[in-house]
Amino acid sequence: MAYFDNAATTFPKPDCVYQYMDEFYRKNGANVGRGRYGLVQSTEIMVKDTRTRVADLLHCPAKQVVFEPTATIALNIIIQGIIESGAVNIYISPFEHNAVTRVLHHYDESGKIKMYQLSVSTELQYDFQRIRYQFDSIRPDLVIVSHGSNVCGLVSPVEEIFALAKRYGAVTLADMAQTAGLVDCNVGLESFDFAVFAGHKTMYGPTGISGFVMNSDIKMPTVIFGGTGYDSANQDMPESLPERYEMGTLNIAGIAGLNAALRWIEERSVDWLWEREQENRERLLEILQGFDFVKIVGNYEGCKYVGIVSCLIEGISSDSAGGIFSQGGVAVRAGLQCAPLAHRFLGTYPVGTVRFSVSNFTCEDDFGILKNVLENIRDNL
Amino acid sequence: MAYFDNAATTFPKPDCVYQYMDEFYRKNGANVGRGRYGLVQSTEIMVKDTRTRVADLLHCPAKQVVFEPTATIALNIIIQGIIESGAVNIYISPFEHNAVTRVLHHYDESGKIKMYQLSVSTELQYDFQRIRYQFDSIRPDLVIVSHGSNVCGLVSPVEEIFALAKRYGAVTLADMAQTAGLVDCNVGLESFDFAVFAGHKTMYGPTGISGFVMNSDIKMPTVIFGGTGYDSANQDMPESLPERYEMGTLNIAGIAGLNAALRWIEERSVDWLWEREQENRERLLEILQGFDFVKIVGNYEGCKYVGIVSCLIEGISSDSAGGIFSQGGVAVRAGLQCAPLAHRFLGTYPVGTVRFSVSNFTCEDDFGILKNVLENIRDNL
Repeated sequence: MAYFDNAATTFPKPDCVYQYMDEFYRKNGANVGRGRYGLVQSTEIMVKDTRTRVADLLHCPAKQVVFEPTATIALNIIIQGIIESGAVNIYISPFEHNAVTRVLHHYDESGKIKMYQLSVSTELQYDFQRIRYQFDSIRPDLVIVSHGSNVCGLVSPVEEIFALAKRYGAVTLADMAQTAGLVDCNVGLESFDFAVFAGHKTMYGPTGISGFVMNSDIKMPTVIFGGTGYDSANQDMPESLPERYEMGTLNIAGIAGLNAALRWIEERSVDWLWEREQENRERLLEILQGFDFVKIVGNYEGCKYVGIVSCLIEGISSDSAGGIFSQGGVAVRAGLQCAPLAHRFLGTYPVGTVRFSVSNFTCEDDFGILKNVLENIRDNL
Repeated sequence: MAYFDNAATTFPKPDCVYQYMDEFYRKNGANVGRGRYGLVQSTEIMVKDTRTRVADLLHCPAKQVVFEPTATIALNIIIQGIIESGAVNIYISPFEHNAVTRVLHHYDESGKIKMYQLSVSTELQYDFQRIRYQFDSIRPDLVIVSHGSNVCGLVSPVEEIFALAKRYGAVTLADMAQTAGLVDCNVGLESFDFAVFAGHKTMYGPTGISGFVMNSDIKMPTVIFGGTGYDSANQDMPESLPERYEMGTLNIAGIAGLNAALRWIEERSVDWLWEREQENRERLLEILQGFDFVKIVGNYEGCKYVGIVSCLIEGISSDSAGGIFSQGGVAVRAGLQCAPLAHRFLGTYPVGTVRFSVSNFTCEDDFGILKNVLENIRDNL
């Protein structure tokens, strides 16, 4: 199996991730914040160390790292919380995932918010002049940007967008599910209020551990309630961070895996991983572009991309093409990839695309298998 | 370390849990429902198999198993969903955890619901005559019962309570965080609408995987929104189960661990595990009762208990006592155990108790260490 579905979850993980997750959880399986004995302490030290490593990775030591089981839950906590705080005018990039748009749609339906799309050219350039005009006309309360599109891989200029949004007093939220650990980004900048990460994607950790970093000054109501192993008599969620948003039992095994993954990234550096990903993306593009029935979607000069490439296969629906690749031993993701808005913008709605995504572990064998399947498709056209 | 904090999370897990989690995740790390290739299929088969095993364990093959990262999130999805559906009069047992009461408190504060406590005698007997009177006076919309108290271990007669609640047309919810896999309970009965399980407690699975079973006929709005790898064009959450409530990436490593844990339980049987837990509880009580400064809380004849025993140490605050046990190498949980309501009912609020909880793996060595620490406390009184 040549695995080109790393945007869904990176696979395989570095060996140290599997190893440490198993080793740590076997030895230290206790529940954090819920006792004072040795096992709890060793687990708490590991969790705290993981928080520090996440903050270091994103250059935001002064911000609060909050763990959640999934990026989806992290996005719900933030978006619902900020809307419950009174945000009405919400701007999003054209590339948002359903984890963002379905939350917004719920509030949009009830008339509680108004949604606007940031102005981006057909060649995927953010049009700052028009965005300024948009913000002048209707002041943004919340600006959400998918840092790396899970459909076409576009890296959005989130620093510039947020710097502008801050001049209008908006709260800012970067969805870094496809970029944390891969694209070097200074989340420590004051213009970043929230940044969501997915532990099991570009961070090479296991499933079940994700989260967000936040500007600790922001006051936001909670939308999920529960025990925090702390301040138990209080029937309101505690004010203290991260407990306020970290209800229930933390995924200890998952955090251990993420800890090992972060150490693995540190040993290599984000820049090195980025370079390697670019090489793999170039190789992927080279192969795909060698077949004239493959039409690459949303790939323009002057744009920056993570290792995600979407394409159409001429004469074959994306869904059928997905099946053909799969039968040929190439793991891809066909369809709308949970991001219908992005496909509307790219002109591939409702058929969707066939998406290929690489990781640090994509190798020449994988590319060879992909090339074979493409040659077979060509020969059978 | 003698581990008596199994109510927080069972530790250790059966060896097969660690082993299968590692082995499966190394080989099959793909994201369920998000592609059609081989790795996804093998993962889907394992996830489906785990659903079947959960349903079998709880005797409810006709009900829907929904995975969530934590029991807290499961409880939020259900309680918030049922309240958003219009439930106003909500009855709870006196033993509910903050994962229930903090959710209710949020709606109670805004005047959206009214909360009532089911009538239970000081000797922990549910008073069905008075409960009938309560239901006659104010009709229940939702009845929530903690099946096993995480403070004193009391097993509530949830079948009888729900049978009565159903005569008044209430929706019923059992919090089985301390009982699933340990107390044989027929969740297949029509009177059970929802039952929540915590994979990492009495089910011996890893952290990061829990969920609920539900009566599929119930229509309930969603409170967390996101991608489901399915019906992506739809900006509403899909109607189909379990996708409607299973947004975001499933914890594959965690589900694999739970799968192994369920097979381990099946090989032994719930009844066998219950017997073994009762033996360990008896041994624990015998030791604690050998010291007259130990006052056991909420332990009455004619009641049924899981292996959780709470006590007060005369002359020492629960918090300090927790520290002494910890220093002596005995892992316990001191304080309110995230269940202040239960402590109010038991008369141990706000000081809380020292809680000891056993598992299938608690052994004579553990009891020996506990006995030593108690002797040291006695000698220093």
